Amino acid sequence: MKIGILGGGQLGRMLIQSALKYDDEFYTLDPAADAPCHNISYFTQGNFNDYQTVLDFGKDKDVVTIEIEHVNADALETLESQGVKVVPNSRIIKIIQQKILQKEFYKENNIPSPDFQTVQSKSEISFPLPFVQKMNTGGYDGKGVQVIRTEDDLQKLWDAPSVLESLVDIDKELAVIVARNEDGETKTFPVTEMVADPKLNLLDFNICPTTLTEDIQNQISAITDKFLAAINSPGLFAIELFLDKEAKVWVNETAPRLHNSGHQSQEGNANSQFEQMYRVVKNLPLADTDAVTFSGMLNLVGAEGFSGKVVYAGLEEVLRLPKTYIHLYGKTETKPGRKMGHINVLAESREELMEKLVKIKEMVQVIAE
Amino acid sequence: MKIGILGGGQLGRMLIQSALKYDDEFYTLDPAADAPCHNISYFTQGNFNDYQTVLDFGKDKDVVTIEIEHVNADALETLESQGVKVVPNSRIIKIIQQKILQKEFYKENNIPSPDFQTVQSKSEISFPLPFVQKMNTGGYDGKGVQVIRTEDDLQKLWDAPSVLESLVDIDKELAVIVARNEDGETKTFPVTEMVADPKLNLLDFNICPTTLTEDIQNQISAITDKFLAAINSPGLFAIELFLDKEAKVWVNETAPRLHNSGHQSQEGNANSQFEQMYRVVKNLPLADTDAVTFSGMLNLVGAEGFSGKVVYAGLEEVLRLPKTYIHLYGKTETKPGRKMGHINVLAESREELMEKLVKIKEMVQVIAE
Repeated sequence: MKIGILGGGQLGRMLIQSALKYDDEFYTLDPAADAPCHNISYFTQGNFNDYQTVLDFGKDKDVVTIEIEHVNADALETLESQGVKVVPNSRIIKIIQQKILQKEFYKENNIPSPDFQTVQSKSEISFPLPFVQKMNTGGYDGKGVQVIRTEDDLQKLWDAPSVLESLVDIDKELAVIVARNEDGETKTFPVTEMVADPKLNLLDFNICPTTLTEDIQNQISAITDKFLAAINSPGLFAIELFLDKEAKVWVNETAPRLHNSGHQSQEGNANSQFEQMYRVVKNLPLADTDAVTFSGMLNLVGAEGFSGKVVYAGLEEVLRLPKTYIHLYGKTETKPGRKMGHINVLAESREELMEKLVKIKEMVQVIAE
Repeated sequence: MKIGILGGGQLGRMLIQSALKYDDEFYTLDPAADAPCHNISYFTQGNFNDYQTVLDFGKDKDVVTIEIEHVNADALETLESQGVKVVPNSRIIKIIQQKILQKEFYKENNIPSPDFQTVQSKSEISFPLPFVQKMNTGGYDGKGVQVIRTEDDLQKLWDAPSVLESLVDIDKELAVIVARNEDGETKTFPVTEMVADPKLNLLDFNICPTTLTEDIQNQISAITDKFLAAINSPGLFAIELFLDKEAKVWVNETAPRLHNSGHQSQEGNANSQFEQMYRVVKNLPLADTDAVTFSGMLNLVGAEGFSGKVVYAGLEEVLRLPKTYIHLYGKTETKPGRKMGHINVLAESREELMEKLVKIKEMVQVIAE
């Protein structure tokens, strides 16, 4: 089968890597000539935000999917009308691309997400402090999101369509990856706990599974059930959750694709998010997602002050550690904050896992030549 | 690093698949334009038995390795003299390519292998019946090997350089994969038990780990220790063993490469043989090889009577089974006996494993359109 992927980054690369155990042809579209997928797929250099480029790329494929949500969804809609299968459907991609529609989707489907106001411009804003402003479009890896705490902060407000959202008093950040195939079969991965780096606003550690009370687990199950029923589209989705200090779960946002919060599934679960995504794309029976043991992930992010040809200092030492798995993304150039790879770790307990992750974090640094 | 592989078959494909989590460039050489590696590496169509072709292919690589042992080892020797690293060394490849040298290697190093006579032609043969005749060169997947049981059988004798070997009264066929890096570090995988299909002479099931008495385990450890000390070369090797009915272990033969007997390591061990091979090639610290649980493998072999565009009948049903992993090799054409893929299975016990393997074997058939 000819499978086209919009985006040729690490998520696409790991999807293709996983799917090399089946007999499909992968095609990728990415603006960067040296994108991580360029040498392991039939690669087209081009802009996945351009209507005609996406149309041209997709028209002879059996199925088109995405590894990034900032794509031209109108072109995907046209492809659907021409009989090309698009996973997830363009309708869902459009809802998720626009924070305003996404928030309305949660509201309509009784999925708990923080109180909000939607505005087209700054002048419409009338929301009690403190709050989070999320740009309607273009947010990514923490960009396009800011916290407005004080009257002074109001000067920073972006004058653009956006969502204003109540601040949640966060106890934990959680994420859950769900999948639905065209036949309507659904599967959910165990819940992951994410420990964020406040500076880079990228994930720091993932821990899976995490310890949750039955009540919290039930709240999450209710969310995933409602979500999977409401989307009415095949797809794999990462639902990012806040657990507040009163033990209530809120949906922060959803990614309609493979996600950093699921990387430890590569060795930590009976099947990875990448295997699941492949099965979704091909409408195959979904894979079992049981956690094999405690697993965790640590991002390898370009260190501050280093740009240029990447060097992974300390990586050879990490190779000596048992049940430790390095995943690099085939990017030759590092820059501060760039996601260059990740390391997965397995352990018998949460304590052992945290100890290993902290130790490894101190061992490795992503610098330049 | 530029890594060149002689051979572009499934072993190379799975090696590259596994190594996609690091940042290397893989180059493959294979006579078949549609070899399993052709679309996931920088591919050269050419004959790996031809001196000049191998020399041209290897000269600009940092390291050259093999995924098949029937390659031009003289060219590899020349490459070594030109400063290209070759894994395993050409000297070892030559010893293993020639059954006569291989048997003499075991004898010199006190590695138990069945009694033998080496001959250059039929007329020299003076070995007690029954025996096995193994052609000095060119044997592969059971070809070039025949059993001579009776006086009548003597008419079948090949008139070519060969080894005549005592028949072992086999209780079990076992295999053990060992690795050594350039620094001299060594690691051994748990022993695999192989259940052969007498008709095709290809493996049928692998089971790992297998239950062995301490005495048998000690015999095997003595063999792997002697082997790893004697080779004096980096490499990953599959040592095929016979356990006879008096509980004595004999070396049947050794493959200087990735091997079918280690495929279940993909999901059954902390790291797979492919990860280990990658580390050997790059002289990195060797990976931990612990068995995670009971694991087994079943080959997907082209069914008798079917040639042409492959169809895997029953495969979708297999996808519904938990802890079951399908690995196809990207071959479009099937023919009787051709290795097209394999299925790995994990289980809590040997009994559960056998049950699953037998069930799956009945579910799938490799046929043609």
